[in-house]
Amino acid sequence: MAEITPEQLQTWLNHSRKYAAAGEVASYIPELRHAPRDALGITLIGCDGRSITAGDCSVPFTLQSISKVFTLLLALIDNGEAAVFAKVGMEPSGDDYNSMLKLELVEPGIPFNPLINAGAITITSLIHGPSPAEKTKRIMQFFQEIAGNAPLRINEAVYHSEAETAHRNRSLAYFLKDNAVLGDDIDVEDVLETYFNQCAIEVHCSTLARMALVLANNGVDPHNGRTLIPRRYVQIAKTFMVTCGMYNASGQFAIRAGIAAKSGVSGGILALVPQRWGIGVIGPSLDRKGNSIAGIHLLETMSAALDWSLF
Amino acid sequence: MAEITPEQLQTWLNHSRKYAAAGEVASYIPELRHAPRDALGITLIGCDGRSITAGDCSVPFTLQSISKVFTLLLALIDNGEAAVFAKVGMEPSGDDYNSMLKLELVEPGIPFNPLINAGAITITSLIHGPSPAEKTKRIMQFFQEIAGNAPLRINEAVYHSEAETAHRNRSLAYFLKDNAVLGDDIDVEDVLETYFNQCAIEVHCSTLARMALVLANNGVDPHNGRTLIPRRYVQIAKTFMVTCGMYNASGQFAIRAGIAAKSGVSGGILALVPQRWGIGVIGPSLDRKGNSIAGIHLLETMSAALDWSLF
Amino acid sequence: MAEITPEQLQTWLNHSRKYAAAGEVASYIPELRHAPRDALGITLIGCDGRSITAGDCSVPFTLQSISKVFTLLLALIDNGEAAVFAKVGMEPSGDDYNSMLKLELVEPGIPFNPLINAGAITITSLIHGPSPAEKTKRIMQFFQEIAGNAPLRINEAVYHSEAETAHRNRSLAYFLKDNAVLGDDIDVEDVLETYFNQCAIEVHCSTLARMALVLANNGVDPHNGRTLIPRRYVQIAKTFMVTCGMYNASGQFAIRAGIAAKSGVSGGILALVPQRWGIGVIGPSLDRKGNSIAGIHLLETMSAALDWSLF
Amino acid sequence: MAEITPEQLQTWLNHSRKYAAAGEVASYIPELRHAPRDALGITLIGCDGRSITAGDCSVPFTLQSISKVFTLLLALIDNGEAAVFAKVGMEPSGDDYNSMLKLELVEPGIPFNPLINAGAITITSLIHGPSPAEKTKRIMQFFQEIAGNAPLRINEAVYHSEAETAHRNRSLAYFLKDNAVLGDDIDVEDVLETYFNQCAIEVHCSTLARMALVLANNGVDPHNGRTLIPRRYVQIAKTFMVTCGMYNASGQFAIRAGIAAKSGVSGGILALVPQRWGIGVIGPSLDRKGNSIAGIHLLETMSAALDWSLF
Repeated sequence: MAEITPEQLQTWLNHSRKYAAAGEVASYIPELRHAPRDALGITLIGCDGRSITAGDCSVPFTLQSISKVFTLLLALIDNGEAAVFAKVGMEPSGDDYNSMLKLELVEPGIPFNPLINAGAITITSLIHGPSPAEKTKRIMQFFQEIAGNAPLRINEAVYHSEAETAHRNRSLAYFLKDNAVLGDDIDVEDVLETYFNQCAIEVHCSTLARMALVLANNGVDPHNGRTLIPRRYVQIAKTFMVTCGMYNASGQFAIRAGIAAKSGVSGGILALVPQRWGIGVIGPSLDRKGNSIAGIHLLETMSAALDWSLF
Repeated sequence: MAEITPEQLQTWLNHSRKYAAAGEVASYIPELRHAPRDALGITLIGCDGRSITAGDCSVPFTLQSISKVFTLLLALIDNGEAAVFAKVGMEPSGDDYNSMLKLELVEPGIPFNPLINAGAITITSLIHGPSPAEKTKRIMQFFQEIAGNAPLRINEAVYHSEAETAHRNRSLAYFLKDNAVLGDDIDVEDVLETYFNQCAIEVHCSTLARMALVLANNGVDPHNGRTLIPRRYVQIAKTFMVTCGMYNASGQFAIRAGIAAKSGVSGGILALVPQRWGIGVIGPSLDRKGNSIAGIHLLETMSAALDWSLF
Repeated sequence: MAEITPEQLQTWLNHSRKYAAAGEVASYIPELRHAPRDALGITLIGCDGRSITAGDCSVPFTLQSISKVFTLLLALIDNGEAAVFAKVGMEPSGDDYNSMLKLELVEPGIPFNPLINAGAITITSLIHGPSPAEKTKRIMQFFQEIAGNAPLRINEAVYHSEAETAHRNRSLAYFLKDNAVLGDDIDVEDVLETYFNQCAIEVHCSTLARMALVLANNGVDPHNGRTLIPRRYVQIAKTFMVTCGMYNASGQFAIRAGIAAKSGVSGGILALVPQRWGIGVIGPSLDRKGNSIAGIHLLETMSAALDWSLF
Repeated sequence: MAEITPEQLQTWLNHSRKYAAAGEVASYIPELRHAPRDALGITLIGCDGRSITAGDCSVPFTLQSISKVFTLLLALIDNGEAAVFAKVGMEPSGDDYNSMLKLELVEPGIPFNPLINAGAITITSLIHGPSPAEKTKRIMQFFQEIAGNAPLRINEAVYHSEAETAHRNRSLAYFLKDNAVLGDDIDVEDVLETYFNQCAIEVHCSTLARMALVLANNGVDPHNGRTLIPRRYVQIAKTFMVTCGMYNASGQFAIRAGIAAKSGVSGGILALVPQRWGIGVIGPSLDRKGNSIAGIHLLETMSAALDWSLF
């Protein structure tokens, strides 16, 4: 693991940063709208405890879709594999991340996988807890534990601004309700409240790297040896990250980088190299598919140089 | 207009009634669930004032989708042709009446036509009025005037039970909101409240026949000579009734009967023969596409026998 | 029928001709590629024998999709209503004229209607005859009879150039074969040969007007009183012309003009006013949906001025 | 690699064989139609040269879709990465293996990936050679080399019976031609001839295992140390096998087994464990998605027991 020097990392980052110009910052998130379009930061934390960083790692951002990986893990812990996959499928969809088309065409009418919005909303509905507030609290605690007990907070401004862009998610949720994917006991607005909260959890690159590290280490916290997530569930999550983690550019990222990763429209990317690195990236400028342009470029460059591909 | 004797009408009705056995009563409407599955009634009112009736015409039922024709007319009166067709298209869709598929595929993202649910919800959003209650009141007054000042009432039980089946419509409405078909000033829940009210207006066969009569007479009340609807708007409404009036069996009904008609999932059908008849039919047993089986059969039989087709 | 003077017709035509500039001539047909983009011609023939004409009526052009109306009629004569509608549906599709999407989504896998390409190819497969050459000959004879025994010829250059653009139709035909819409006894290449021939029949505005006149007169040749087509089949054809005749602008044309019409990508339009006029139009400049821009504008103008709408 | 004993392998095979009863043998392939529905065989060849086998490994079968992996490799060798991915995408489709729906919806109109039929036909069109016969010959030579110079032959009966079921592939190919994915210099029938030949290559389990072994060994023949395929191209192929190798059950197989594999409708599956095993399986009884039921079960069982998942 001596292969990455800070100088080399800085060189790669400088090169990838140029690609940010071709994209757009997701304008609906006030905090990130203020972030410079060409911001780019990366933190790697090794299983040996070593940390290495470059670029704009002090920029806070929200988890957005990255949260889906960890609510999936909590839903698996709460309900088991069989109950979860009775409600969501396992197939990549090839479609936009918030497409409704697929919902209609597929029998028996369940979302394709847990990482598209329809699937993630369904997963959130499976989190145990007597109220949206309690569910959000359980999610926060679970995420914090995986993040090495770093204190996490909800970015309230982002939470509230989600409401302005929530029409599509609300539409999806009522569609799921109509198809009984969200059952009789599930209140749509309650689920959405929890879902918007999980998306609005604020992190830094180092938080993502720390969370990814636990996945890279098969669910075990490398600092204290505690098993935080059963290994089989980590395996499930990593598989979805490879097949569906980068929206409908997942196939391309698998060919080019070949590592488990999950992006969010905040420009964050969580990635990992098994047994070696937990990685957090932030680059707010997005491509047409919703992924951080410069962040993708940086990870592809590093994977090629360091032979990280699983394949 | 001497062509229809009560005896002949009764014979046709008796024959068509048998077809009801192949269908299903829409179970979500409590009132109609209690109606005998093989109920079938028809009322015709001539432009000369003559009325003729057969079968179960005392059964009350709700307008459901039949209301869409008249809110379209009111929206045209309130906004004019250009403003209305900036928000909804003019094409038959070939799809299920509440399909979302089409919403996604068509540019620039407006509903195909005013008679599919997405289009009808959009039309309701265009009705003038400061509040949902006021809009509902204006709709009621407009409908009553066309119905010859018959007092109309909302079936509250049906209105409330719509809530249980409203997930799909709510999903459609938020999808429209996301696509800015429902503008910034439109509250989704407000529109749905008005929409569910218009669907829950209770009528009899004679009400439908009286409303259809005004359309058959090009917008003029034949009893007092008053113009209730501009002729051009009646023409628009009649065209949509022919191309899109019977859900995705509209093309078949045009080939077989060839008359302007609109059905509802209550089993009601409003139909008309220009310059001659306003027609109301009730037959709660529905086919797979949501139309009254026996009602469709009766109208097709009569159209063939009496050479009613426009074509 | 004294309402249209040659001067008035010329005025309307001059006005509509300006709209041609917004469209494009279908470039794959060599003959029409040479036609001036702003060519526009119209011929009307009355049931009383009177003929009236304006503009560029000497331009020859090929029938293309207009042929579909008359092969449908011949297929009905050859096979009867039940056999024909076992193979094609009756619903407008709302999609592009050569869309494959609908073929996949609709059960039981038959084309939506006889006027989309998939439906028309299926209809051609139903024409009786021992060989493609014999079928083409029967089609030619039938068309000629309806055209008042005007001699018709195949434009060989157009027939052969169809081969260059036939990939989509060939794809559709094999899809139909795969779905058993084209049966075991049907050779795909044979059907396509006949289909390309029917599309390449060369006509003038006066030919279209003469053919439309027979439809306007319910299947009877007004000049000699002979019934060329059973009235019920004419009714079926006219209904499809209203609901599906102008590709996926059919609904709009029904609202705006309200008359039975069928267009082709050559820029021709056949239209009719029942009991009054057979109409032929040529205007090679097409809109995005494949209809003659100026031709559509001219027919909408005349329908509004002369109150031609069926509705 | 001492972990698999012949006894253990036989036990797993006996258990998985029972699942064959739930599926159907693909009836269009005469040879396999005669194979007992519950046939199941597996051969593993280790990088150390060790071979282990159980069940019905003497059954010959045709490559079918398994061939797509190796024509992709040859196309990459012939044309390079950039030229290949200008013609096919990298995304899983989530749809049926021969769906046309996706072809229409995706811009710029190229097939989703090289392993769906549309993509595989496109890949075959990229193989170098002056004629279909020469291209087929080059494919055979390439496959033979990877198979350890085992002599391969085309099953002529299967090749010819493909013609009966080729309507869908022919339809796809003309659709690709229409969209210029197959260029002006490509004759559709020529491409299909080569494609049907590659699908009809006859193999045994041991052939598949030997071909998979070269992929497991990153393109190097473990017996003589020769590099047969550049490592980067093997990586690309393995990635597609994981994301798209098992039709629209690929996501599920990734979750459950997590190994690179490709199935064919003959019931064959080629799979591999990096640096360890090349695997060939035959089990003619297929599930609804076109994969060998018992074969899938056997590989999932072994992957779980032996911890083969990449994830």
